[in-house]
Amino acid sequence: MEPSSGSRGAGPAVMPVAAVLPAGGSGERLGGATPKQFCAVQGRPLVSYTVRAMERISWISNIIVVVSPENIETMKSIVEKYGHKRVMIVKGGITRHRSIFNGLKVFSENEFSNQLLQKPEVVIIHDAVRPFVEEDILSKVVIAAKEHGCTNYDLDYGTECLHLALKYCKTNAKLVEGTADLWKVTYKRDLHAAESMIKDNLSQQVCVITDVKEAVAQVGFRLHESLKNQLKVEAISVSLSKNDSHLQNIFSGQCYNFVCVNDKKYAIQETQQLADMLEKSNIPLLYPVVLISVHLDISENISFSIGMEELTRIKKIAREMKKKNILVYGLLIQDKDHLLLQDTVNSAAALIMALIKDRNAELIGQLLVA
Amino acid sequence: MEPSSGSRGAGPAVMPVAAVLPAGGSGERLGGATPKQFCAVQGRPLVSYTVRAMERISWISNIIVVVSPENIETMKSIVEKYGHKRVMIVKGGITRHRSIFNGLKVFSENEFSNQLLQKPEVVIIHDAVRPFVEEDILSKVVIAAKEHGCTNYDLDYGTECLHLALKYCKTNAKLVEGTADLWKVTYKRDLHAAESMIKDNLSQQVCVITDVKEAVAQVGFRLHESLKNQLKVEAISVSLSKNDSHLQNIFSGQCYNFVCVNDKKYAIQETQQLADMLEKSNIPLLYPVVLISVHLDISENISFSIGMEELTRIKKIAREMKKKNILVYGLLIQDKDHLLLQDTVNSAAALIMALIKDRNAELIGQLLVA
Repeated sequence: MEPSSGSRGAGPAVMPVAAVLPAGGSGERLGGATPKQFCAVQGRPLVSYTVRAMERISWISNIIVVVSPENIETMKSIVEKYGHKRVMIVKGGITRHRSIFNGLKVFSENEFSNQLLQKPEVVIIHDAVRPFVEEDILSKVVIAAKEHGCTNYDLDYGTECLHLALKYCKTNAKLVEGTADLWKVTYKRDLHAAESMIKDNLSQQVCVITDVKEAVAQVGFRLHESLKNQLKVEAISVSLSKNDSHLQNIFSGQCYNFVCVNDKKYAIQETQQLADMLEKSNIPLLYPVVLISVHLDISENISFSIGMEELTRIKKIAREMKKKNILVYGLLIQDKDHLLLQDTVNSAAALIMALIKDRNAELIGQLLVA
Repeated sequence: MEPSSGSRGAGPAVMPVAAVLPAGGSGERLGGATPKQFCAVQGRPLVSYTVRAMERISWISNIIVVVSPENIETMKSIVEKYGHKRVMIVKGGITRHRSIFNGLKVFSENEFSNQLLQKPEVVIIHDAVRPFVEEDILSKVVIAAKEHGCTNYDLDYGTECLHLALKYCKTNAKLVEGTADLWKVTYKRDLHAAESMIKDNLSQQVCVITDVKEAVAQVGFRLHESLKNQLKVEAISVSLSKNDSHLQNIFSGQCYNFVCVNDKKYAIQETQQLADMLEKSNIPLLYPVVLISVHLDISENISFSIGMEELTRIKKIAREMKKKNILVYGLLIQDKDHLLLQDTVNSAAALIMALIKDRNAELIGQLLVA
């Protein structure tokens, strides 16, 4: 999801690089009132994904987002809410080219000179509705731009933008054809596809956390075995009450899915604790985090049963956590007499995969049975 | 999903019309081993959706699917499994044009003359990987073809196919640019989009069934009120044990979602009955049907509780029904002392919508709580 990038300036560019993101489209083709760049994907506007894709690349010093006048406030609130840095919002013009021009002007106008805006040697012009852009392609663009200057060497989107850049900024701009991943969100089906791709990206890794009791750790291990064919699994046994450094490492990584196994009924306190740690880590800021609380039923004589009051309580807690962008689900695994069946483990793993892949906000607080 | 079409021959064509579906692509761009036309969407290969889109149009007399030699058996089994009619499978050539040529040859070759294959006046050539084609656009294509003959009036895909058709079949073929819905499944993201669009289409209508008891019918009515802002709702009160004609009408319609409300605990027998009726109706043949069994908890003194045995039993039954392409979920609504809260009704409606939209096969047999 968020590949690590080199330290600032250590990328292809020991020269200053900036990005201009035209985000002024009206979204007619989407058939809706909301322009596509502001449509929510997993609760977050599409433009925020594109900004993030640029922002995580350390060698891009400034990101200029050009929006139509009526959307300036919306864009400001997006930048604030999702904590975007190095972003400047600029008012667009009546055409796409005028908007790009306005974005580029930022680097030449005197009024900006006191804003410490470094004049870039290369400007990347990138549609705000193409959220899936990777560092390597941008790196190639920048290197090619440096080599060729502002030539006519664009493959895809016409040359007018390049001329604009050269004419008004004395800056080399270059447009290069992208890969298949660089597609543009144009129609409603593209929003569906973007949502699915983002969910896919978020489902690459899961962290299975158990307490240190052997019976529980053992179940964590078997879940790990069953899940690892489908995604990357980190499995750790820790005491949640201690500030475990291994857990902190995972929190500072790019994991958006947590499975917490324990033998306490409902384990509301443990779930709450983990949610608090997640919140502090800032992980749920950009993407919804899935937290599955697995309850291991090891009762030997009496049969497990659950009442309406408990179910209602779990739902209430999940609703609170949802406000923090943490999606909590319950999962019950029966392990009577420690004779846990492989079928049950596989069923639990399948449910965990389904919850992670779907990230369905309506199903939070439900207690599923493996 | 399946708009009603005119009676056979009463469409734009009082002339004979046939369709050729080239389905021989290798699917390289999808990055997978399975060619995209055979990739499963909601468990059914994409090509079956496209065949169905043609098949439901009564005035298309024959559908020729052209596949590469190694996929002939696969295609045969698809036609058999999904009960496609008026379909002939033809071996493709090494290029797309040769494949279309092979498809068209069917109408001129003597060997087919004893197969009652009517020689068409217009042949529609339609990619097997464009499943979202509607009758009106095909109707326009046929009318235009009739008016213009095989002219060079194609807008999108080159003229070679048209020449082929004229040259080898003395038949007028015509290619016309489609609408935005006519897009082609090319990349993995397109499969995601196709899946989402099909799910969207299947989520347009729900049938809420209650028994005739007043308390239950009342809950059905309130669910109807809460759901109707989001989709078309048919609400009926019937005794499932009788062969109700109203219910039969719904089964012969295009409804793929059923909510069955009752006050019996788990109501396994009723669910089973409804599932049997659905199976007989053939509705689950082409699309997975969602069946949500709503249990109304009206216990006044004792608190509702559920044990592991019941939960396991519900899961087992759901697994059996899954084999018939019916996805069964449980939903518990608490209606203590008949003081059903609006919040609870809304929560139930939200869960019903989520289950219908997702059609998640992994979550079958789970008992959710509103």
